[in-house]
Amino acid sequence: MTTLRFTKGQGTGNDFVLFTDPDGEIELTPARVRALCDRRFGIGADGVIRAVRSRSIPDGEAVLAEEPEAEWFMDYWNADGSEAKMCGNGIRVYAHYLISEGLVQSERRDTLPIGTRSGVRDVLAGMSGYTVDMGRWRLSGERLVSARGLYVPRPGLGIDVGNQHVVTALANVSELDAVELHQAPKLDPEGDANVEFVVPEEPLVKNGVARIRLRVHEMGSGETLSCGTGSVAAALAFRHWGGEGMPNNWSVEVPGGRLGVRMFPTQEGEHVSLSGPAELVYTGEFELPEA
Amino acid sequence: MTTLRFTKGQGTGNDFVLFTDPDGEIELTPARVRALCDRRFGIGADGVIRAVRSRSIPDGEAVLAEEPEAEWFMDYWNADGSEAKMCGNGIRVYAHYLISEGLVQSERRDTLPIGTRSGVRDVLAGMSGYTVDMGRWRLSGERLVSARGLYVPRPGLGIDVGNQHVVTALANVSELDAVELHQAPKLDPEGDANVEFVVPEEPLVKNGVARIRLRVHEMGSGETLSCGTGSVAAALAFRHWGGEGMPNNWSVEVPGGRLGVRMFPTQEGEHVSLSGPAELVYTGEFELPEA
Repeated sequence: MTTLRFTKGQGTGNDFVLFTDPDGEIELTPARVRALCDRRFGIGADGVIRAVRSRSIPDGEAVLAEEPEAEWFMDYWNADGSEAKMCGNGIRVYAHYLISEGLVQSERRDTLPIGTRSGVRDVLAGMSGYTVDMGRWRLSGERLVSARGLYVPRPGLGIDVGNQHVVTALANVSELDAVELHQAPKLDPEGDANVEFVVPEEPLVKNGVARIRLRVHEMGSGETLSCGTGSVAAALAFRHWGGEGMPNNWSVEVPGGRLGVRMFPTQEGEHVSLSGPAELVYTGEFELPEA
Repeated sequence: MTTLRFTKGQGTGNDFVLFTDPDGEIELTPARVRALCDRRFGIGADGVIRAVRSRSIPDGEAVLAEEPEAEWFMDYWNADGSEAKMCGNGIRVYAHYLISEGLVQSERRDTLPIGTRSGVRDVLAGMSGYTVDMGRWRLSGERLVSARGLYVPRPGLGIDVGNQHVVTALANVSELDAVELHQAPKLDPEGDANVEFVVPEEPLVKNGVARIRLRVHEMGSGETLSCGTGSVAAALAFRHWGGEGMPNNWSVEVPGGRLGVRMFPTQEGEHVSLSGPAELVYTGEFELPEA
C-alpha cells in the first residue's frame, strides 16, 4: 500500500490533486490518475500535478538544458489518464503550492521558472494571484461552429496557443446562456479543438481594459468552469476582430471566476500572459491502488 | 479558524463528507455545507453526514424515546444546504464509518440502530456490505412522464418510500440510454418527485432474484449515479406490475453499482430493505469558512 499525502487546489474552478515526489519515486499510471480524479469513487479533479525535480524525470532534461534554474517540473496528467504538456490554470496553482510548501528558495518567490513538457514557463507572483507567460500564438483559419441552442452555424476563428481553439462571438448573454454544451459543438472543417463562445461586456473597453465573457467546451472534458488557454485565445480573437486601437489588456469572465490576459512584445515576437487566482483548498491522505 | 478532520465515503457512487462531532459542538450551516460539497471549490460530495450523539442534538430526543440504544444520530445534509431526513446509500456509509472509527461497541457491530430524522433505522453488517430496513411504503397514483429522448410521454407509477418517486418502465437498454436527464423530466400531474427509468434484465427472474436496471433523476441534484430509495421504489413498481409469482428479492443495477432490495413481512405490515456496498475513500483536513 502506498499512502499518498496530497493537497487539493483550484484556480477559477479548474481543480487539481497535487503531491510532492522530489525524486520521482511514485509510479504514476493512467489507471492511478483516473482513480485519483474520479469525482465519486476517488478524490475528484480535472488533473493531477506531481511536484518532481526536473533532474528526476526524463522530460526534465530538455528543461534543464533551456534553464538550469528550473528546479521543479510540473508533471501534469489529465483526468482521463493522459499526460498533458501545459495547463494555464494548473501552473498558477502549482507555483502557489511550491511556494506554500517551502519547496522553492525565497529569492525565487517573485519569478519562478517552472519546467513543463512545453518547455520552461516563468511564473510571477503578484498581489492577487499569479501571472504566467504563455509564449507565442498564431491564427489558424476560420471554421463553422454548430451547437444545440444556436439556430444557425456561426463563424469561428481558429487560434493556436500551444493547443487548438475555435472562438465564436455571440450576440448577447441570453444567446450565450442558451448554448447547450452537454455535447461537443460540431466544427466544419472537422478537427480537434476546444471551442469558446464569447460575448463582449457593455462597453467592451473600460479604463483601458477590454472585457469579455465566455463559456468553453474542452475536448475530452466537456463544458468546464474555466480554461486558461481558451481565455487567452478568446482575447486574441476579439482583439483581431476589433482591429486598430484595441487594448492589450483583457479581462475574461469564465464560469469559475475572472482571468487576465495581456499581450506584450518580446525579442522573438509577441507573447501573451495569463493572470489569475490560485488557492489550496484542503489536504488529505489517499491509498493508491496497485500500479 | 475551525479545521475539520473529515473522511470521504461512497456507496454505489453516492458520495459523502463524514466527520465526528460527538457533542454537537461544530456549527453546521447551509453555507458551510454548500462549501464542503462544492466539487471544484470545496471537497465535493452529494451530502454531509455529521456523526453526533443522539443526546447532543434536538432531533435525537424522539430517536432516544423510540430506541434508547440508538446512541448515534445521522445528521445528514444535502449538497444544496438543506437538511435531509434519510439517505439509503448514506446510512450504509455512515454505519461503516461508525464501525471503522471504533465509535460503536463491538456487540453493536452486527445490528446497529441509527437515529435519523425519519426515526430509528436498523443497519445490519454483512459479508459484502450493509442492509438497512427502509420501513413501510405505499403506492401513490399514476402520472405521465415526459423527457427529452422519449418520443411520447410514458405512464409512471407513483411510490412513496418516505420520499416521492415516479417509476417508468422503458422497452430496452437503447431506449434507456437515449433518455436525456440534463433537464428534469416533466410530470403530469405536476409535483415534486424523483423519477426512475427502468428496464428489466433478460430474463427478469434468475435463481429466484428479479433483476432490473435504472437511471434516476433526483430533485435538486439532476441525474445521479445511484439513488437508494429510487432503487427500492423501482423494485416495488416492477413487482406491482408483474403481479402474482413475482419474487421478493430484487437486484437493481444503477450507474454506480448494484443494490439489493428485499420485501419482507413484519407485525406492522410489509417492510422493504436495501443492501449494498459502503467504502471509505480517503481522509483529509479542511478549514471551515466562518459560520
